[in-house]
Amino acid sequence: MIVDSALYRAGQRVDVADHSPGDLRALRACAGEGDFVWVGLHEPTGPELEEVRAVFGLHELAVEDALHAHQRPKLERYDDSLFLVLKTLWYVDEDDAVETGEVNLFLGADFVVTVRHGHGGSLSRSRRDLERHQQVLAHGPAAVFYAVCDQVVDEYEAVGAALEEDVDEVEASVFSPERTDDAARIYTLKRELAEVRRAVLPLREPMRRLAGGEVSGVAGETAPYFRDVADHLQRVAEVVDSLDALLSTAFDAYVARVQVQQNDDMRRISASVGLIAAPTLVGSVYGMNFEQMPELGWRFGYPFALAVMALSSLVVWLVARRAGWL
Amino acid sequence: MIVDSALYRAGQRVDVADHSPGDLRALRACAGEGDFVWVGLHEPTGPELEEVRAVFGLHELAVEDALHAHQRPKLERYDDSLFLVLKTLWYVDEDDAVETGEVNLFLGADFVVTVRHGHGGSLSRSRRDLERHQQVLAHGPAAVFYAVCDQVVDEYEAVGAALEEDVDEVEASVFSPERTDDAARIYTLKRELAEVRRAVLPLREPMRRLAGGEVSGVAGETAPYFRDVADHLQRVAEVVDSLDALLSTAFDAYVARVQVQQNDDMRRISASVGLIAAPTLVGSVYGMNFEQMPELGWRFGYPFALAVMALSSLVVWLVARRAGWL
Amino acid sequence: MIVDSALYRAGQRVDVADHSPGDLRALRACAGEGDFVWVGLHEPTGPELEEVRAVFGLHELAVEDALHAHQRPKLERYDDSLFLVLKTLWYVDEDDAVETGEVNLFLGADFVVTVRHGHGGSLSRSRRDLERHQQVLAHGPAAVFYAVCDQVVDEYEAVGAALEEDVDEVEASVFSPERTDDAARIYTLKRELAEVRRAVLPLREPMRRLAGGEVSGVAGETAPYFRDVADHLQRVAEVVDSLDALLSTAFDAYVARVQVQQNDDMRRISASVGLIAAPTLVGSVYGMNFEQMPELGWRFGYPFALAVMALSSLVVWLVARRAGWL
Amino acid sequence: MIVDSALYRAGQRVDVADHSPGDLRALRACAGEGDFVWVGLHEPTGPELEEVRAVFGLHELAVEDALHAHQRPKLERYDDSLFLVLKTLWYVDEDDAVETGEVNLFLGADFVVTVRHGHGGSLSRSRRDLERHQQVLAHGPAAVFYAVCDQVVDEYEAVGAALEEDVDEVEASVFSPERTDDAARIYTLKRELAEVRRAVLPLREPMRRLAGGEVSGVAGETAPYFRDVADHLQRVAEVVDSLDALLSTAFDAYVARVQVQQNDDMRRISASVGLIAAPTLVGSVYGMNFEQMPELGWRFGYPFALAVMALSSLVVWLVARRAGWL
Amino acid sequence: MIVDSALYRAGQRVDVADHSPGDLRALRACAGEGDFVWVGLHEPTGPELEEVRAVFGLHELAVEDALHAHQRPKLERYDDSLFLVLKTLWYVDEDDAVETGEVNLFLGADFVVTVRHGHGGSLSRSRRDLERHQQVLAHGPAAVFYAVCDQVVDEYEAVGAALEEDVDEVEASVFSPERTDDAARIYTLKRELAEVRRAVLPLREPMRRLAGGEVSGVAGETAPYFRDVADHLQRVAEVVDSLDALLSTAFDAYVARVQVQQNDDMRRISASVGLIAAPTLVGSVYGMNFEQMPELGWRFGYPFALAVMALSSLVVWLVARRAGWL
Repeated sequence: MIVDSALYRAGQRVDVADHSPGDLRALRACAGEGDFVWVGLHEPTGPELEEVRAVFGLHELAVEDALHAHQRPKLERYDDSLFLVLKTLWYVDEDDAVETGEVNLFLGADFVVTVRHGHGGSLSRSRRDLERHQQVLAHGPAAVFYAVCDQVVDEYEAVGAALEEDVDEVEASVFSPERTDDAARIYTLKRELAEVRRAVLPLREPMRRLAGGEVSGVAGETAPYFRDVADHLQRVAEVVDSLDALLSTAFDAYVARVQVQQNDDMRRISASVGLIAAPTLVGSVYGMNFEQMPELGWRFGYPFALAVMALSSLVVWLVARRAGWL
Repeated sequence: MIVDSALYRAGQRVDVADHSPGDLRALRACAGEGDFVWVGLHEPTGPELEEVRAVFGLHELAVEDALHAHQRPKLERYDDSLFLVLKTLWYVDEDDAVETGEVNLFLGADFVVTVRHGHGGSLSRSRRDLERHQQVLAHGPAAVFYAVCDQVVDEYEAVGAALEEDVDEVEASVFSPERTDDAARIYTLKRELAEVRRAVLPLREPMRRLAGGEVSGVAGETAPYFRDVADHLQRVAEVVDSLDALLSTAFDAYVARVQVQQNDDMRRISASVGLIAAPTLVGSVYGMNFEQMPELGWRFGYPFALAVMALSSLVVWLVARRAGWL
Repeated sequence: MIVDSALYRAGQRVDVADHSPGDLRALRACAGEGDFVWVGLHEPTGPELEEVRAVFGLHELAVEDALHAHQRPKLERYDDSLFLVLKTLWYVDEDDAVETGEVNLFLGADFVVTVRHGHGGSLSRSRRDLERHQQVLAHGPAAVFYAVCDQVVDEYEAVGAALEEDVDEVEASVFSPERTDDAARIYTLKRELAEVRRAVLPLREPMRRLAGGEVSGVAGETAPYFRDVADHLQRVAEVVDSLDALLSTAFDAYVARVQVQQNDDMRRISASVGLIAAPTLVGSVYGMNFEQMPELGWRFGYPFALAVMALSSLVVWLVARRAGWL
Repeated sequence: MIVDSALYRAGQRVDVADHSPGDLRALRACAGEGDFVWVGLHEPTGPELEEVRAVFGLHELAVEDALHAHQRPKLERYDDSLFLVLKTLWYVDEDDAVETGEVNLFLGADFVVTVRHGHGGSLSRSRRDLERHQQVLAHGPAAVFYAVCDQVVDEYEAVGAALEEDVDEVEASVFSPERTDDAARIYTLKRELAEVRRAVLPLREPMRRLAGGEVSGVAGETAPYFRDVADHLQRVAEVVDSLDALLSTAFDAYVARVQVQQNDDMRRISASVGLIAAPTLVGSVYGMNFEQMPELGWRFGYPFALAVMALSSLVVWLVARRAGWL
Repeated sequence: MIVDSALYRAGQRVDVADHSPGDLRALRACAGEGDFVWVGLHEPTGPELEEVRAVFGLHELAVEDALHAHQRPKLERYDDSLFLVLKTLWYVDEDDAVETGEVNLFLGADFVVTVRHGHGGSLSRSRRDLERHQQVLAHGPAAVFYAVCDQVVDEYEAVGAALEEDVDEVEASVFSPERTDDAARIYTLKRELAEVRRAVLPLREPMRRLAGGEVSGVAGETAPYFRDVADHLQRVAEVVDSLDALLSTAFDAYVARVQVQQNDDMRRISASVGLIAAPTLVGSVYGMNFEQMPELGWRFGYPFALAVMALSSLVVWLVARRAGWL
């Protein structure tokens, strides 16, 4: 589906009178020196993408990648155009889960084609932002490149922050006195961190190249902008690594807590056993059948025995209490 | 065994009238400028391979490697020809196991020799596919190189996907409430991942070189194709690493679960002991031989005692219940 | 808030008669050849920073970073000026916790602007120290660069030393005979080490560049000073890594201790159970109702039975004692 | 001890009439253009080695290394000669242990000196093999270099294969239902793997240099042979790494199994306790002294009570059985 | 404190008639072309070091480092002189502990200044050795550099060997049948290994540069000597890494042993409980008050009951024995 398509001239969107949204060839024909066309697609069908390919002369292998998605983040040159694959991430609050999509960008001298997969990560915000900053947009297609990367990486940071909160929760749970089963939660978080890492790490190399101004077709003066993006990306990578390490430690602490609790239980149980076993011993004493057992003939022998029983339990209880077992 | 041998001219298979399948020398003689011969062998005997060596002038050390198999994946230049070793992998559903084979390729200016070991990974699909794509095949022997690599790496991805499912199963099993013994399963999966890693990792360097167009004898215009293969390879490597890390965490979670279960058992056992010990204490009370024990003379003393016993069990049961021990 | 602003000439602070503290433009105008201005800000508002930007011609992206803080440590060139981000760290004794702030430095040919965030890490010490060392200050703005880095890294070392003490305490606690819950303490320390690492590691690369004299705009003769800073930074990094590894081992030792203690408890408990169960067995013997039980008729049968009971407990106690269980 | 010394000319051993085995100076004097002398020593004494040093002009530091052995594998140039240190490994079946020795090689334009330490790894096989391959031997001293490296690395592979079998055994033991103490075995294997790694890893760099034809004094045409050796070395390194990782996982599985077994034991024990405690409760019921206990007067009261006791045990047994505890 | 100071000419110590030990300026003035002065200091005071600085024109920052010690090992150039920091290590048998000191060396064209901190690692041995080897000493100040490095690294090797023995002891203890508490010992050893690593690892880079002859001011012909030192250093580094990995495995084995022992204890305890519980059950049977219990009237009923009790214990004992629980 073509979400939007427009011609930009000197940093401003140009109204093209006789242009039906889907007629990309006509749109491109309107582009003069320094103008460029930005076509935005969302989960396009094969034929839609084929038409785009024909209009802008994209490379077959890249188009195939853009159709099927599920690529690794990468930046590649095909003849005159650049092809960038980005993973989009967003955090779904209801499930405490990270979901992923994909954005593919084709960049030529006078066009940008963006192909988005997945629900989240709409690019219309980037477009609106850019259209408000004539100055940035005047850098041409590379500005779109930057704006999309910037938005996507901003979303990484948001996801990173959300995961940081999740880790804080897990941490609080692990070290709370309550008995919680944190193993599954930690596992899931580790799995989500792995997801984020899979989006972030392979993107660092392309961003570094863009930030270094090494990519022909992307003007050198945009490098500081990409440097900013690369920096944020690096920060996300560090956050993810650091959270992963923390979770490993938290997991170990969880296991230690389970063990400590088992210890506590065992001692509490043992004390309880003593509370019952001690008076049982007393009972077995007075259950003996000796002919000469003076207590048996006492008037208050029975209450006396009960008192001894209670006392024996009390002694056990006090000892256990003092040892911190109860 | 020679599986197939044929002459290709301008991207098409050429019928060579007077050619018996095994007469490779005659076949090669038919090859004109720009033509090439593709000979496919499956677990050849020494003499078969020796004949091939003689016809195409292959290097002794490479031929020895191709005969014995069990090489590391590698790409090497011997005089005028290239020698590529690939591990083939396939997933056997019945055993949930990964099996391995090997493909050796010799590439000269006018020939390709493929030597396959092991049951799986037949190359006839590659051959059929290629013969349908005249355009690709027209790139000469390098096209065969590409086609075989592509098929082999596709199979890696299939194996990776199958293992991902296995890991999902293990994960479900570890976090299910049932008591399963997941240690052996996790161990086996880790072992299989190590197998895959052993096939994938050493191949990355050769693929990178081919993708960079650095290998003389392989035309630069095929580089994008190899870049595609290298990319898939990289993805498999990342999947494998990520699965391995997940399995480690899953293993830790499994051990934690065993411990938690032991804890649960211990508490359940303790509660059960209490269920029996409490009435036993009551019994020992009324088994005492005091002369003055009013209850003993009661008409309903015995039912009363039984009721106290039941009550004592009930109290234990309620306490245990409330503490979540039963 | 503008904390201080001054003009330096030939290594000395110059009084500028008609200069109100906030009038930076006037101050800068006074700067002749070889002079420089040092403006120190603390958590400036947007407008304050905007004015500074206008006066010194700073780059927008850098100013935005300096406004919002929460950047990674980095050194970047924007047109004519350098932009350095440092994390400040200080150890709060009351909480045994590490807190973080941030310092941003802008360096031009004739100015330094320092922007500080967070409570700790005041730079007035650096300024006073520098103003006392005319010789160092004569190196121009780079001297301020050095002085700030030096102070910040000195504080890293202080934090490292404080954490070393904390680790020593944890270590003592883990190996003490007392039963302490060290898991949370170790976790917190690991978390703080991660904090320090996040400040230290990314700074190494910029310091290495400054120490190598590779940064244009910073005179080569200051390189030995930055080498000194880089060296201290490296030492902090090594201390942090080493503490982290020690904590991991200490954690393992803690878990092992928990297990050993459980073992000890179990044996102690078992011995205690034996102390009660043995005399109970004796009691059950003499509670049997045989007609012919000579002891029952003995005069001192009852005391004898009690003695046997006590003896049985004593035997259990001695056996347990000898086995080291009590 | 001088094991063998001979002159080689055009790939063949030459009989030197008037040559006593120990008279190396005379032997060397016989060497014409393109000839070379191969002297093989086994654990030489200082004076023996000193004589060799004098005859061939070896460097003092290298000779000292060769005398004392216990060097790291390395390849070094001293003036005109090369000095190579190799660790030899062999597997002693009786002890399931890996033993180590050392080979030092000196290579000059017209000589090779091999110095062997330790029982295993005799080089006479290399010499015999080489003497049979005139073609290879014709490459001069470098052929000896190659032959020795090849033999030593072949032995590494044999050791690797033997350790693989050991790991398989351990694996089988860990996952067998029997209770085996695998910790010590795993530890020993890890220690032996570390031994192998210490021989293999430092050798990779020299082999890579020889395989790249970068070592002056070793003819470029021998590079493919060294490439073969380097490849095998790499394979051994991968096998060792992979076995080490497997052993770590196997160890974790072993610990998990111990824990699972403890769990099983605990449940079995608990069930057994129940088998005794339940009828004891019944006994305590009928041991009560109530005047009105109808069962006591029944004719078959006693058998009835015994039956109730048996029944109570049976119920416990069935419950435990069903829960899988017995 | 100035330990020794002397003038060396052509590899020999020269007596300077009118030279008081502390008059370094006079001593240096005596040095002709190719001579050099070696001044050895031990924990000098500030003024002592200041005098040395003045005489030899050392750099302020380096002198400050040498005064305070606690530097990382490093090699740095300050103007015309080199500054090398080494950590010294020695093993104190009484405590089984590694202690550390520091040596700082200043190297100029005609002087060497060595500054030693800490008790151990006296350099007088190096001086005596060197004075005996005129040939080596003739290489000038670099010979002193080499001699000190050689001695220090030799001591590293001695420490490594001592730690290897300690690890062997711990290993023996972990796998002995006795119950030992090895956690603290392993922890301490790991801590000491970290200490050694901190001395060894940063020194590798300087040694590699010296071994490569890349350091101006140190003659190229001394490179083989430094190569030797670098090699030993590398060996120590490998030993330390390998010991550290072994200790980790040993620790895991220790934890596993604790768990196995707990298992053994639990089974032994359970069997013991059975030994008491079984006869108690018998006792409770004959404690029942049925009117019709034939055994009660038997003449040898009581001995019979005792026999049954003993038998029941025996059965438990045999069963436990057979299961390996006792």
